[in-house]
Parts: sequence; C-alpha cells; structure tokens
Amino acid sequence: MEKLKEYVSVKDEDHFYHQGAVELLIFNFLLILTILTIWLFKNHRFRFLHETGGAMLYGLVMGLIIRYVTKSPDVESGTVYECEKLKSGPSTLLINITNQVYEYQYKREISHHNVNGHQGNSMLQKQMTFDPSIFFNILLPPIIFHAGYSLKKRHFFRNLGSILTYAFLGTAISCIVIGLIMYGFVKAMVHIGQLKQWEFHFTDCLFFGSLMSATDPVTVLAIFHELNVDTDLYTLLFGESVLNDAVAIVLTHSISIYSPKENPNAFDAAAFFQSVGNFLGIFAGSFAMGSSYAVVTALLTKFTKLCEFPMLETGLFFLLSWSAFLSAEAAGLTGIVAVLFCGVTQAHYTYNNLSADSKMRTKQLFEFMNFLAENVIFCYMGLALFTFQNHIFNPLFIFGALVAVFVARASNIYPLSFLLNLGRKHKIPRTFQHMMMFSGLRGAIAFALAIRDTDSQPKQMMFSTALLVVFFTVWVCGGGTTPMLTWLQIRVGVDPDEDLKARAVSQSAPNLDKNTTKAESAWLFRIWYGFDHKYLKPLLTHAGPPLTSTLPEWCNPVARILTSPRAYGDQLKDGDTVYIINNDELTENYESSAHIAVPAQDSTASTQATGKEDIQEGDLGLGGYKLQLQPTAGQPQKNSLA
Amino acid sequence: MEKLKEYVSVKDEDHFYHQGAVELLIFNFLLILTILTIWLFKNHRFRFLHETGGAMLYGLVMGLIIRYVTKSPDVESGTVYECEKLKSGPSTLLINITNQVYEYQYKREISHHNVNGHQGNSMLQKQMTFDPSIFFNILLPPIIFHAGYSLKKRHFFRNLGSILTYAFLGTAISCIVIGLIMYGFVKAMVHIGQLKQWEFHFTDCLFFGSLMSATDPVTVLAIFHELNVDTDLYTLLFGESVLNDAVAIVLTHSISIYSPKENPNAFDAAAFFQSVGNFLGIFAGSFAMGSSYAVVTALLTKFTKLCEFPMLETGLFFLLSWSAFLSAEAAGLTGIVAVLFCGVTQAHYTYNNLSADSKMRTKQLFEFMNFLAENVIFCYMGLALFTFQNHIFNPLFIFGALVAVFVARASNIYPLSFLLNLGRKHKIPRTFQHMMMFSGLRGAIAFALAIRDTDSQPKQMMFSTALLVVFFTVWVCGGGTTPMLTWLQIRVGVDPDEDLKARAVSQSAPNLDKNTTKAESAWLFRIWYGFDHKYLKPLLTHAGPPLTSTLPEWCNPVARILTSPRAYGDQLKDGDTVYIINNDELTENYESSAHIAVPAQDSTASTQATGKEDIQEGDLGLGGYKLQLQPTAGQPQKNSLA
Repeated sequence: MEKLKEYVSVKDEDHFYHQGAVELLIFNFLLILTILTIWLFKNHRFRFLHETGGAMLYGLVMGLIIRYVTKSPDVESGTVYECEKLKSGPSTLLINITNQVYEYQYKREISHHNVNGHQGNSMLQKQMTFDPSIFFNILLPPIIFHAGYSLKKRHFFRNLGSILTYAFLGTAISCIVIGLIMYGFVKAMVHIGQLKQWEFHFTDCLFFGSLMSATDPVTVLAIFHELNVDTDLYTLLFGESVLNDAVAIVLTHSISIYSPKENPNAFDAAAFFQSVGNFLGIFAGSFAMGSSYAVVTALLTKFTKLCEFPMLETGLFFLLSWSAFLSAEAAGLTGIVAVLFCGVTQAHYTYNNLSADSKMRTKQLFEFMNFLAENVIFCYMGLALFTFQNHIFNPLFIFGALVAVFVARASNIYPLSFLLNLGRKHKIPRTFQHMMMFSGLRGAIAFALAIRDTDSQPKQMMFSTALLVVFFTVWVCGGGTTPMLTWLQIRVGVDPDEDLKARAVSQSAPNLDKNTTKAESAWLFRIWYGFDHKYLKPLLTHAGPPLTSTLPEWCNPVARILTSPRAYGDQLKDGDTVYIINNDELTENYESSAHIAVPAQDSTASTQATGKEDIQEGDLGLGGYKLQLQPTAGQPQKNSLA
Repeated sequence: MEKLKEYVSVKDEDHFYHQGAVELLIFNFLLILTILTIWLFKNHRFRFLHETGGAMLYGLVMGLIIRYVTKSPDVESGTVYECEKLKSGPSTLLINITNQVYEYQYKREISHHNVNGHQGNSMLQKQMTFDPSIFFNILLPPIIFHAGYSLKKRHFFRNLGSILTYAFLGTAISCIVIGLIMYGFVKAMVHIGQLKQWEFHFTDCLFFGSLMSATDPVTVLAIFHELNVDTDLYTLLFGESVLNDAVAIVLTHSISIYSPKENPNAFDAAAFFQSVGNFLGIFAGSFAMGSSYAVVTALLTKFTKLCEFPMLETGLFFLLSWSAFLSAEAAGLTGIVAVLFCGVTQAHYTYNNLSADSKMRTKQLFEFMNFLAENVIFCYMGLALFTFQNHIFNPLFIFGALVAVFVARASNIYPLSFLLNLGRKHKIPRTFQHMMMFSGLRGAIAFALAIRDTDSQPKQMMFSTALLVVFFTVWVCGGGTTPMLTWLQIRVGVDPDEDLKARAVSQSAPNLDKNTTKAESAWLFRIWYGFDHKYLKPLLTHAGPPLTSTLPEWCNPVARILTSPRAYGDQLKDGDTVYIINNDELTENYESSAHIAVPAQDSTASTQATGKEDIQEGDLGLGGYKLQLQPTAGQPQKNSLA
C-alpha cells in the first residue's frame, strides 16, 4: 500500500500517475485468479496444490512477465548523486533542482554493488517490492491474531506441555542445529573461495537459523482440517506452529541485538546472557501487553451496553486488538507476540461478552482478513523471486540450507517426542512423529523475517535462500501431505466432538488413557484454572460464580460492583450442581493425572461438562473457509465454565 | 498507512524506529474514543453531535497536542540541499553521503516559502499528514461503494428524475455560482492588496467551486435514518449526495485539465468544449468500467458454484469491486464514479446470486469498512487543522467561501425544485426544500479534492478554506438537524414499507398522487425496465423469465445455456400470473403517469407486487449501524421482478 498513486501536479504525471493503481490491480488480479483456482480444486477435490501454493505459482508467473516482458521507462535509476554538505541521511531530504525544491523521503541504505542497471522494467519491479514494514504492520497481525482467536482452547490446553516443549525447546534446538550446519557450509565456502571469511560470522548463521526455524504448515493444516485428521495430531501441529512463530521472531530479534564486544566469532558470556535476558524480557513484555489490551476489551464489553450496537462493538474489538500490536511495537516489544496472546485472551474472555451478531462478525472479519493477507503474502513470495533486485543465489549455501532445515526438524521432533512420551500417558505414535517431521514447512514468517533486512550481501544471500526453501517446502511437502497421510495410515474423518467424548469416557474409566503429562497437570494448571474460574472469568465476563462468593468477605462492596447480574442468575438457574460438576471436571482433568490411580469420577457428569464446553469452543473454532453460517439468533448464551 | 515503521539498520533507528506504529496508534486511539463517544450519545439519545463531528473534535484536540505539546527531535528539516548534477526530480534518488549510498523516494514539490522551521514536533506533524493518494485509493472507495451498494433502488428510481436534476444541473449551478462569487472576492482582495492579480485566475475560482460543490450530508442522513424521516426526503437527499460526489469529482478533474491557450482569464470556446467533452467521456467511461466489473461478478457467481464457499465468494466480490476502482484509475478515468456504479450494479444483479451467508458477509464487511473509513477521514480533518504545515487563512476568502457556499446551495435547490414541481405530481413541499437547503454539508470528498493539490499558494488557501467550511457545516448544520426538523414540522417515524404500500394503493386510485414526473416515466424507463426484466435479469441472475421465452427463436441454443435452471423452476412454480402481475405493475407504474387519466389497475395485485419487491430491497437497505442481525437461514430466495 505504500507506493500508491502519487498525485503530483499534472506536468510531472508521466513518472508517477496511476502507478499505484496498476500495482494494486496486479495483486487483485492474482488474488482473483487464486480464488477461482481454489474453487476449481475444491470442486474437484484436488489436494496436491493448496491455495497458497497456487498463489505462489501465479505470483511467480507474474514476476516473470514483469521482469522479461515489460519495458523500462526509467532511465534515471542507477545514477548516484553527491551532496557535499550532507553528513548523515536525514529522514526527509529537501533538494533544490533547477530552482524548484523537491521533497524526498528516506527509503533505505543500499550497498554500492547493487547500484547497477537491471533487466526489464526496473521501475515496475521496484514498485512491486513493497516495504517490509507492510508485512509486519499490516499483513502479519491479522494472520497471527486469527490463529490465536481460533485456537481450540480445550484441545490446546490438553496438549499444552507438549506444545510448549516443541515450541520453545524445539525452536531453540532447530535454531542451533541450522546455525551449526550453516557455519560448516560457510567454512567450506570460504575454503573453496566462494566467500570471504569476514563476511559471515557465526552469529549470522544463528540469525539464519532462527529465522528458518519459524514453521508455517498452513497448507498441511488446511488439508488436516478438510480431512478431519486425528485431533491430537492437528492440535500438536497447530499449537506448535503458532507459538513457534512467536519464539522464532523474538529469537531473531535477540540474536540481531547480540553484539559481543570484541571478536564476533568468540563466545561472549555477558553478551549471551544479555541476549537470553532480552529474549525473556521481550517475550514476557509482549505477552503482558497483548493480554492487557484483551482485558481492557473484555471489561469494556462487559460493563457497557455496547452489544446493542454490534458494529460499534466489532469496531472496538478490532481497534483494540490492533492497538495491542501497535503498542507493543511502539514500546520496542514484539507486536506479533502481543497480538497472538491478545487473540487467545480475547477468545477466552471477551468473546463471551459479545452479542451474537458481533461473535459472528468478528469471526468472519478476521477469517476474511487472514485469508486475504495469507494469499497476498504467498503471491508476493512468488513475485519476489523475479522482481527482487538483489538476489544472491549460491548453490552450496542453498543446498546447505535444505539439508540443515531437514536435519534440524528431525533433531527437534524425534528426540523431543521421545522425551515427551516418557511423561505422556497418551503417547505420540511413531506415525504422528513422521507426519510432524514432514510438516515442517516454512512460510510467511520466515520470509518476512528474511526480507526485513536485505542491506548487506550475507543478508541478501539469506533472503534468496529462505525464499527457495519456502518454495521447496510448500510445493513438495505441501503437495505430499495427502499421499503421506495415506502412506502412514493416519486415521482421517475423525469427529472432534465424538473424539473428545470418547476420550472423556475412557478417561474416567480405570485404564486411564490420558494425554496430559504429569508435569503440565500437576500444580501449575490447577492453580491457573482455579484462579481463572474463580476470579478472572467472573471479573471479565458474565459467566462463572459471582465474585461475592469467591472473594473474601471484606471485598464484598467491590465484588458486588464487578460481578455481572447474569452471574447470579446462572447461579440461581443452574444451581450449585453445575458449579460443582465443573469444578469436579477440572479436578478430574488436572489432578487425577497427577495421582495416576485416582478413583473414577461420575463419568456422565464429566462427559456432560466436557460436551458443554466443547460446543462453546466449536462456536469459535473456525479454521479454513469451510465454516457454514450458523443461525445464531436462537443460540443460547452459554455461561458454563469454559 | 504510508509512513509505517521503517525497518532501518539498528544504528539508524533513532530517527525512524517505531514511528509508524505511533502514528497508527494515535489514529486507533482517536477511533476508539469516537466509538465510545458514539455509544454514550446513542445511549442517551443525544443528537446534537454526530459521530463524524465527534471524530473531528477529537482529531482537533490531538492536533493541538501534537503541535503545541510535543517537542521536535528533528533538526535537519528545513535545510535545502543542492545537487548540481540533477536536472529534474527522479522518482528514486540515490545519494552518496559519506561513502554510503542511501535511497530516497520522491514525495512532492514544495514552494520555497514553505521551507521554514515550524512550531512543535514538525517531524511528527509531517508523519501524521499522510499521502492524499491514501484518501483516493484506500479510504474513499469503500465509502462510495457502500453508498451504491446500500441504495434503496425502488425509492431511488421513483425519484430518479429529480435526483439526476439536482445532481447534474444542481452541481453545475453550484460550481458556477461559487466560482463567480469567489472571483468577485478575489477581485476585491486584489483591490485592497491582499493578493496579486496573477495568482488567481477565474479557472482557479471555478476549480474551487467544483470541489466545494461535493456535498456530504452523512450527519443529516444518519439522523434521518434514526428518526425515520419521510422516505422521499431521505431518498432525494441521499441520491443527490451520492451522485453529486461523482459529478463534482469529474467536474474538478475536467476543470483542472481545462487549459486555454492564451489568456487564462479569457473564454476559450475550443478548450471549454474540450472540457465538456472530457467530462462526458470520463463520466461515461467510468460508468462503463464500473458496470462491467459488476457484470463479470454477476456472471461468475451465477455460473460457478462458488456460493458453496461463502468466504471465497465474498473475497471475489470484494476484489472485483475494488478492481473496478483500480482499473478506472489505471485507465485514466475516475475510480470513484466507477466504484459507485459498480456498487449499484452489484446490488441489482450480483446480490441475488450470492449465498445467504455471503449476502450478510458482504453487507457487514462494507458497512464496517465504510464506518472505519468515514471516521478516519473525519479524525484526520480535525488533525489537519493543526498539523498541516502550509495553511493560508485569509479572512476575506473564508468569509467569501461561506457566503458562496450558501448562496450556491440556494440557487441550486429553490429554482430546481420549482422547475421539478412543475412536472412532479407528488410535489416537493416548501419544508423539504428548506431542509435540503440546510443539509448542504461539505465533507470527505471536498476535503479529499482540496488536499490532492496543495503545492501552490492559491491551492493552499483553497485547502485551508475548504477545511474550515467543512468544520462549520458539519458542526453547525449537522448539529442543527434535529431542531430544524422540529421547526419545519417534517414528519418523522415513517415506516418506509407502510409508506410505499399506502402510496401504491393511492397510486392506483383515480386521484393519481404520483411522484414520477412525465419526463422520467414516459419512455426511457419503460424501455430500460423492460430490457432489464426481459434480458439482463435472466442473463445475470437466477431470476426473471427464462431467456428462451424472451429472446427470438433462433437464439434458443445460446439462451438455453445462459438461462439458470432456477428461472424455469420459478416459471413453473409461480405460474404465469406472477409474471403478468409484475408486468402489469411495471406498465402501471411507468405508463399510466404518461397518460394521466389511465384506468385504475387491480389495486391488490399492485400492492402485492410492490410489497414483494420491497422486502427484497429491505434485505440490502442497511444505512447506519442500527441494523440488527436477521436469521438468514430460513429466508427464502426471492425471484420476483425487482
């Protein structure tokens, strides 16, 4: 959106007039083609090329056309001018050209070796490469927010321990393994004279490792969703990919800040610990920023009657969620992480306060924005292969990267799965591990992180390589998902509700087929669930037990103000039984697995509660665009635990 | 969105880092405040300050803060550099500063007298003034499309003659009257030495007249909608304001192209007729471009089964509608006009092909975008008063503009209403004329046209003046709407459906209280309606009589392919009676008024058909955000005339 049509006075219009419209039109055209292709594929149940793969393909073709077919109208580019008085690059440059003052805006610093003529219409090529900040401020936030907002909480929390392990430990392993392998390849390249030693430090390799560790199995997840693959596998993969993006982004940021004082290849303990501190600080800060915006939204929607005006409510929801991102960025934190946790918190609290209309509006709005943003990014990746002007393709480096990516994925999934299976009752089967290994696709985040900085030659080489890895994994791994599922004999066509109920029944039976590990259920989650149920839910939503009954006596005046009248209503209507059952179910889920041989609970009560919660989640669990319109008018407000 | 966060290398980040996030955050914050204020006002039924007025007020306060409270970190701005080798301003400037090459992008040409230091944080002020192209490419299209898409066709067509007269003839009158009055004031200013003769030509005055002729009574219409004011008054005002924007934009474009060869004040017949030709060409071309995109959308949604995937359908609808705008711009036409007629055509044809889910999604999406865009623009207007750096406030010019705007509105409404009443059976009462006179607010379009070019001093004076006129009319006229309605005793609380039915009944009674003028009903609309009903509707939608029955015999093979199977179904189901009634109603509506004393038709049949059509329109007639969610699942597809 940056280089839109520039309205300059009529005389100068040759250069700029309508340029922006043409660019946007190209993107629109590519997206329209993509939509029609998706429809055709869906109509013929063709699953070897996902929409994102298609978008990339169309982008590629368009990039080819722009590069080799169009002619260059721009003769000026390539000439470097000197201004003696300038000592540094100001943000805005006023320049006197033949007695007219022109204003120029700072774009970027470029290496000398890039200042050459290029093939084809370099003007149009330049126009088509939009500012990396657009990825971070406009295109990524809706995708990440949507991931958080559409998270199936119950499935997610059931596997939280494993997901956190893959996301934090796994991403760290992946980053280090890729870094080490690439360092080996870089050494080899230096040895055969393809690279000069001083150009590529170990930190650069680690930087590359961290950005290549952001997986994006959107293709695989879409197919899983369509085929109703086993819920645990889906949740593990989805949860890992969502959190792993956040980890990879903060990791990349921390590594780029890491600056050892002396020898850049030597290990500097102080700088290392500062980087670790940075990582933790940025992550925690972004988490806090995201959640607080969601809490504000929840309070606003709870205590105003904004739900009478669904559009105002949707608008407020949208603006506050985006503000979470922008505030984090403005505060020097990571907006993507903030917006992810904002999404999760919004879904957990605010969603329950919204009017039926707003529930649907927000879901559809973010689903739509997610769809558009994702396809724009993949189209753009296709385009970038031919229109980006500073590619450096080094065969050895590319080969190294492909090897590194797969080795790193293997050293992430297999050892961690082995460790997790020691603790998990419901083991992660071998076939699931192979499937997760195979689903290590790279996508939007890796690309966005790589394009953020393409000023130096090593960074340009990283960018070109990352782009090719994305292409390879999306087309090869993405296209191979369905055959792989068949080959591994992973069950498809699972109804997640049925699955949960069956699990709940079997869970309360003595054989205890649980999938929560000891570590994740023992105390932390019991405390959290209790706190959430007793204090946060009643404070932030209309549901839960009244605060007057959960807070100490002396807080009563405040508690009375903060408790929604509806909370009392529920209490009266549903009676204490629901509360007790919910509480029991809680205990059953998160306590019993700690003491493995706990006596069986009332199985029907547990199933009932589980089923209840599941419906509420079903409301929000969208995923893909297969979601059909649900008549919402008659749907009762659910105020149970969840 | 233009100057988003700039990711420069870490060392340079002082200047740019997070700047974009801060700006966007300021806008988000203003919008959140506006939403909360709207809610408060709505909750307390307070109608003296509309949301747009509120948004402007908040923008104003924020502009004050930015100007007078923040400190300037930018010491560089204001210095003009010289580069001897440069002969013209290239789009991209590569510049060598202390052995580093920096890329700068062309922004604009600025007058020498503006190159001074400014008060406050001029950097932030500059950042907050975003590129005018953002108005035209991003913010205006959804507003205009929404206006076209939510047009109540039946009411609109009933008053089409009057609306076209006000929009075309009225806007031309307004433009010329403002131009003449301003030319008088300019002469006076030259006389007392405030202005130099050569700075301001008559064409500049006409240019100002054309941009000040774009009315934007969004405030008034919102109040009308809330109070259910008389439907005819609402339709006249809404229709006029929608079309008048299109006319004013094309008029401004034509005048800015008008370039008499010699004396710029003398009348040059050739140039004048070229301008008129330009006007007609651009208008017709844009109309054709907009309609063709809508026709393509209609055909795509009719002949594919895209409706099984509502999100894809919505996406396609959105992208094709936006493409109409972009294609028109790329072809040198007027995108706003194209997108307006695209909206009308989409509502008339495509809307009927959409799935129930997509119908709601598209309505809600455009409603939401319209809401956001409108409030962003009004916030921005408030901000611009203090952050725009080249204001020229001339009291005499401002006074002249206020006088001119009101005189021009009066010479538009009163004489034209008098002329129209000669032809109209259902006269426009005196009170309606006063109300229309009073509702001549200026808003987004006038502002956008004025900010498009602020390079020269006359243009800067026009911009500052236009801004003040917008403020004055929005706050004074907008705030006075409710008192004015009471004072003029205009009836409120009218149910549009009841109104229509009553009208239909009285229409078929012998006293013939019609409001279609002779001119508009006689032949043109009969032909158009017949053509639309017989050929376009069956071709582009699933409704209407099958093409096999309306096209000549020899077209049958093609007709069979193009006719929807559903069209035969209707024919069989509803039988010939419905068709005949519809046809009769048509004849009755558009023929009988030509022969004033036509015999009365079957009143029940007519009412029935009218009622039917009206429900279908009600689907789409949104207006404001009071629209409540309708359960759409059980709603039958209506395939009647409409």
